[in-house]
Amino acid sequence: MAFTYSTQRILQIVGESAECVGAYEGDIVGISSLKEASSGDLSFLGNPKYRAEVEPSQASVLLLPLDYEGTPKTGQLFIKLENPSFALALICRDIEGTLLPKPVPGIHPSAVVHPEAVVSPLASVGPLCVVGQGAKIGAAVLESHVSVGRYARIADDAYLFPRVVVADYCEIGQRNRIAAGAVIGSDGYGYEFHEGAHQRVPQIGKVILEDDVDVGANSSLDRARFGSTIIGAGTKIDNQVQIAHNVRVGKHCLIVAQVGISGSTVLGDGVIVAGQAGVAGHLEIGSGAMIAGGTAITASVEPQAKMRGFPALPMMQFNRISILQRKLPDLFKRFDQLEKTVESLGSSEVISE
Amino acid sequence: MAFTYSTQRILQIVGESAECVGAYEGDIVGISSLKEASSGDLSFLGNPKYRAEVEPSQASVLLLPLDYEGTPKTGQLFIKLENPSFALALICRDIEGTLLPKPVPGIHPSAVVHPEAVVSPLASVGPLCVVGQGAKIGAAVLESHVSVGRYARIADDAYLFPRVVVADYCEIGQRNRIAAGAVIGSDGYGYEFHEGAHQRVPQIGKVILEDDVDVGANSSLDRARFGSTIIGAGTKIDNQVQIAHNVRVGKHCLIVAQVGISGSTVLGDGVIVAGQAGVAGHLEIGSGAMIAGGTAITASVEPQAKMRGFPALPMMQFNRISILQRKLPDLFKRFDQLEKTVESLGSSEVISE
Amino acid sequence: MAFTYSTQRILQIVGESAECVGAYEGDIVGISSLKEASSGDLSFLGNPKYRAEVEPSQASVLLLPLDYEGTPKTGQLFIKLENPSFALALICRDIEGTLLPKPVPGIHPSAVVHPEAVVSPLASVGPLCVVGQGAKIGAAVLESHVSVGRYARIADDAYLFPRVVVADYCEIGQRNRIAAGAVIGSDGYGYEFHEGAHQRVPQIGKVILEDDVDVGANSSLDRARFGSTIIGAGTKIDNQVQIAHNVRVGKHCLIVAQVGISGSTVLGDGVIVAGQAGVAGHLEIGSGAMIAGGTAITASVEPQAKMRGFPALPMMQFNRISILQRKLPDLFKRFDQLEKTVESLGSSEVISE
Repeated sequence: MAFTYSTQRILQIVGESAECVGAYEGDIVGISSLKEASSGDLSFLGNPKYRAEVEPSQASVLLLPLDYEGTPKTGQLFIKLENPSFALALICRDIEGTLLPKPVPGIHPSAVVHPEAVVSPLASVGPLCVVGQGAKIGAAVLESHVSVGRYARIADDAYLFPRVVVADYCEIGQRNRIAAGAVIGSDGYGYEFHEGAHQRVPQIGKVILEDDVDVGANSSLDRARFGSTIIGAGTKIDNQVQIAHNVRVGKHCLIVAQVGISGSTVLGDGVIVAGQAGVAGHLEIGSGAMIAGGTAITASVEPQAKMRGFPALPMMQFNRISILQRKLPDLFKRFDQLEKTVESLGSSEVISE
Repeated sequence: MAFTYSTQRILQIVGESAECVGAYEGDIVGISSLKEASSGDLSFLGNPKYRAEVEPSQASVLLLPLDYEGTPKTGQLFIKLENPSFALALICRDIEGTLLPKPVPGIHPSAVVHPEAVVSPLASVGPLCVVGQGAKIGAAVLESHVSVGRYARIADDAYLFPRVVVADYCEIGQRNRIAAGAVIGSDGYGYEFHEGAHQRVPQIGKVILEDDVDVGANSSLDRARFGSTIIGAGTKIDNQVQIAHNVRVGKHCLIVAQVGISGSTVLGDGVIVAGQAGVAGHLEIGSGAMIAGGTAITASVEPQAKMRGFPALPMMQFNRISILQRKLPDLFKRFDQLEKTVESLGSSEVISE
Repeated sequence: MAFTYSTQRILQIVGESAECVGAYEGDIVGISSLKEASSGDLSFLGNPKYRAEVEPSQASVLLLPLDYEGTPKTGQLFIKLENPSFALALICRDIEGTLLPKPVPGIHPSAVVHPEAVVSPLASVGPLCVVGQGAKIGAAVLESHVSVGRYARIADDAYLFPRVVVADYCEIGQRNRIAAGAVIGSDGYGYEFHEGAHQRVPQIGKVILEDDVDVGANSSLDRARFGSTIIGAGTKIDNQVQIAHNVRVGKHCLIVAQVGISGSTVLGDGVIVAGQAGVAGHLEIGSGAMIAGGTAITASVEPQAKMRGFPALPMMQFNRISILQRKLPDLFKRFDQLEKTVESLGSSEVISE
C-alpha cells in the first residue's frame, strides 16, 4: 500500500490558516503514530496525552495543535492548526482517492441485471452482481457479488462492498456505505406457536436506510413484519450488528460492533450503543442516551441517560456497586466478626444482669 | 411495497366463523399497528394491553378478539375471531405470495452446476449459484450466489436466500428457510497443541438440518469433528447465531440472535435461548429450559429450568440477587453504623464492668 | 459421508511405536465416540474421565493410551500409543484428503480475473471468483464466490472457502484457512463529529495475516486507519469474531467465537480469549493471558493473568465474589436480625445504666 505524497498537497488540503514551522524537502511515504513514525512519515498529535511523544518522534511532517510550543528538528516540518485529527482525516480522504479509486461507471459483462431493472448510466455494477426485477440503481457503486432484490432501490453515491445483499423492496439512501457481507432485509424472526409447532409469521415489510448511513461487515438488518425497519440519516452501524424487525433508529446514532437490538424497539437521535450491548424488544431509548459495552437493556431508557450492566443500571450506580462487590469478601468477614462480638456482648449482658 | 387487497379476500382467508360488524367498501392498501394505521389500512388487536387503542384507531378493517365489545365507526369493519394475531399471519402469508412470489423452476444460465450434480426439474437455481459434484437438489429454491458443496443435499421446498453456503456433505431438510449469508458446515474449531503450535484437528463430519428448520442471516453452523452436528425438526434459529461442532439441538427450539453454543452441547426439545446468551461446551440443556438474554451457561441445565445471569442462576434467584445488589451501598452504610454502635456498646460494657 | 478405511492404513499412520492387542479383520466404516460407536467404527480414549466407557464400547478399533490395562473383546483391536487424540487427528487428516480432496489447479472459466492480476499456475481459482487488479495469488485454493481485491496477496497453500472477501491491499499468509463468509479488510469504524454529523475517517491501511492463521466463518477483520491490522503467525480465530482496526494479535493465540476486540488493542503471544468476550480499545493484553467466556475487559491485562466477569476481575476473585453474591439474601436477613439484636442490647444497656 505504498504511496508518495507531497508536502505541498498537504498544505493545499489543510488550508491557509495552518502555521508552518521548519521545513521538510522530501515526499511523504507513510502515515504513522508519533511513536512508530520514521523518516518520511506524516504523523499527528490528536490526543493531548501523547504530547510528550512529539519531541522524540522521527516523523518528517507533524500535524500539531496551535498551542504546541516545541520546535522541529532539522529537516522536520511542524504544521500547526486547530484540529490536527480532522486535518489528518482530510488528508487521508485525499490519499484514499488515489489508493482506492472509485470504480468507473458501467455494468460488468458478468453481472446479471434483470431487463426490468433501471440502472443509472452513472452506476458502476461490478462483476458477478445480480440486480432483480424492478430494482432501481442510482449513481452508486456495487462492487463484486452484490445481490439487489426485486424492486429494491439504491440511491446516488451509495457504495456497496462485495457480496452485500439488499433484499426485495429495501431502500438504500444516498451516500450509504454498506460493508462486505451485510444483509439488508432478511426476514424478521417471528413465529406463532400453533398446533404443536412454531408457525412462521410472514415478514412483508421492508428496510429503509436514510441518507448517510453506514452499515458494517456481516451486519444484518431484518425487514419489518409489515411497514418498515428504519435507520435514520447519519447513523453509523459497525460490524456484526443485528437489528431486528420494525426497529426504528434515529439520526446520527452510533451502534458499535456486535450489538443486538430486538424487535420494535425505538432509538431516538444521537444514541450511542457500545460494543456487544443488547437491547430487548418494544422499548424506547431516549435521544442522547449512552449504553456501555456489554450492557443488557431490558427496560426503556430516558434521554441522555448513561446505562451499564447486566441488567442495566445508571452508569454511576453500576460503577459504585461494582466497587462494593469487590469488597464483599471483606464485608462477609467483618460481618462474621461483628456477629461474634454482638453474641459475646449479649452473653456478658446476661451475666451482668 | 404497495399492494391492494380486498375485504372479500380477507374474509375468505380468516374463514366463516369470523363475525363481521360494520362495513368498509374500499380496498386495503396497507397493514399497520392500531396507533399508526390510517384510512385504508388493516390493523389488529393481538395483545390485550393495546385494547384502548382500538377505539381511536383510523384503520378501515380491524381484526379483533371475539370478546371485544366496542362498535366500529362509519365506514369501518370489525372482524371478530378467536386469534386475531394468527389470522393476520394467514393474511400476510397470502400477501407475501403476491409481493414476494417464489421464483419459477429452472436453472439460471449463469449458474455453475457440476455435471455430476442431480437437480430436480422442479428446483429453481438462481443466477450465479454453484452446485458441486454429487450434490442433490430437490424441488427447492436457491436464490442468487448460493454455494452448494460436494455431495450436499437440499430437500424439497427448502428456500435458500442469496449467498447461503451449504458445505460438502451437509443436509438441508424439507421446508428449511436459510437466510442470506448463513454458512452451514464450516469447519469446527478444534486444535491440539503439539510441537509449539496449534495443530488443526480435521473436521470430517457434517451438519444435518431436519425438516422445518429456519436459520437466520449470517449464522454459522459448524460441521462435526466426525459424525454430525444436528438441528432438530421445527427449530428456528435467528440471525448471527453460532453453533459449534457436534452440537445437537432438539425439536421446536427457539435460538435467538447472536447466541453461541459451544461444541458437543446437547439441547433437548422446546428449549428457548434468548439473544446473546452463550452456552459452554459438553453440557446438557434439558427440554423446555429457558435461558434469558445475555446469560452465560457454564453447567448443565435441568428440564423446564429458567436461567439467567453471568454466571447463570435460576431466574428467580438471579432477579432477587439483582435487587439486593442495588441495596449494597445502603447495606455498607448501615453496616458501618452498626459496627460503631456495637463498638460503643462494647466500650460502655467495659465501663459498666 | 461414507468411507471405508483399512486397519493397515491406520497402523501406517500412527507409526511403529504403537502396541497392538487383539485383532479386527474388517474395514473401518465410521468414527465415533466410545459410547456411540458400533461394530465397524474406530473410537478413542482422549480424556481419562471416559476410561470406564472403553470396556462396554462396541467400536472395532480403539486408540488407547499406553497405560490402559483392559483387554479387547473377540474381533476387537486395541492400538495403544502415547497420544490417542493426536493419533486420531492424523488419521482424520488422511481421511479428509479422501472425503474433501483439494481442488485441482486452474482458473474456472466463470471466474473473473483482472488481466493485471498475477495468478500462480498452481492456484485453484474456483467458479465465480473475482480477482482484482494487481492482486497476486500463490499456489492457493479459492473455492467459489471468493472476492480478492486490488493489490491483495494470497500466499502459497492458503485455502479460502466460499465467498471469502479479501479487500484491497490485504495480505493472506501461507497455509491460512479462511472460512466461508469471512471478511478480511472491511473499513475500520472511525468517525469525527464535525458540523453536526459523524464524518467518516478514511481507513487507508490494510490487514496482514501472518502464516498459519485460521479465520472462522462470518468473522470480520477491519483494515487499519493507516498502517496495518496484524494477526500473528499460528493464531486461530473462530467464527463471527470481530477484530477492529489497528489491532495487533500476537502469535499462537486462540480467539473463540463471537469475541470482539476493539481498535488499537494489542494482544501478546499465546493469549486465549474465550467465546463472546469483549476487549475495549487501546489496551494491552499480556502474553499468555486467559480471558473467560463473556468477559468484558476494560483495562489492560498482565501477562499470564486469568480474567473473568463484567467488568473483569482476576478469575479467582470473580469466582469467590460470585459465590458470596449467592449468599446475599442470607446476609441481608442475618443483618436485619443482627441490627435488632444490637438495638435490644442498646436498650437494655440504657436500662441497666
